[in-house]
Amino acid sequence: MDLHDSDDPAARLQAHILERIPLARAMQLSVTRFSGGEIEMRAPLQPNINDKGCAFGGSMASLMTLAGWGLIELGLRARGLACDIYVGDTQLRYREPVWGELRAVARYTEAGEPDRLAAALHERGKGRAGVVCEIAGETQPAASLAALFFARRHA
Amino acid sequence: MDLHDSDDPAARLQAHILERIPLARAMQLSVTRFSGGEIEMRAPLQPNINDKGCAFGGSMASLMTLAGWGLIELGLRARGLACDIYVGDTQLRYREPVWGELRAVARYTEAGEPDRLAAALHERGKGRAGVVCEIAGETQPAASLAALFFARRHA
Repeated sequence: MDLHDSDDPAARLQAHILERIPLARAMQLSVTRFSGGEIEMRAPLQPNINDKGCAFGGSMASLMTLAGWGLIELGLRARGLACDIYVGDTQLRYREPVWGELRAVARYTEAGEPDRLAAALHERGKGRAGVVCEIAGETQPAASLAALFFARRHA
Repeated sequence: MDLHDSDDPAARLQAHILERIPLARAMQLSVTRFSGGEIEMRAPLQPNINDKGCAFGGSMASLMTLAGWGLIELGLRARGLACDIYVGDTQLRYREPVWGELRAVARYTEAGEPDRLAAALHERGKGRAGVVCEIAGETQPAASLAALFFARRHA
């Protein structure tokens, strides 16, 4: 990740994503919160709409994947670990349509995941971590993701 | 789906997707083949690139989801069934990075799926079908999707 001027990790991550991932720019993605164990990303409906007037499934998948990736990216940066992070096996559930702004919150599958990942990176230069992410719905999560991410430390 | 002038179902579907789904337009998606049991969609790397210079996972998920949806949409259209089709539970595997054009081919999980779906739509006005999709890689599929789609007949 390039370093930008801002001291706010969420703002830095947003600038990096918008600069380097054209589809995230097309989605008008924003990184609205980061607290170590949790990250929130948002995107307005209009650029992410489908032919039925609700959110496109691919936009939801993209937003949740980026949230999971960003959670790990910022977590490793905070520990001084510069890595390439790739998404692996992913399960997606779409429960109800989203008719407004997309709001995705990602967390680690288990609280110990970041410590285990950092230990693996120090020992072997690579590791993996599980993330879950949900997009808010009316009465339940509208969609959810469970994904495994792989990290490889820069040489 | 709106009807466009072309007699070619793949060209009609592409026009519909590009007109009604802004993210597919941003991806520069094209529908390159449809043969009843199989559909191919493509997208160039540049608008779908990530910060590592290979294809963004969200673009791969979006392309494979649209291919699965398009396969069912065109299959039902060919049978004269006008439906809304939604993606449901989805498993994604990312096996290797893609450094060039994205080429996704979707098929039904089983050969009998379209007949079963059509029968369910005639009987109950709704039904579901399983689809698998792969993005071509160097020596193996670079990514794959297995997804369940739900169809509801227009009133």
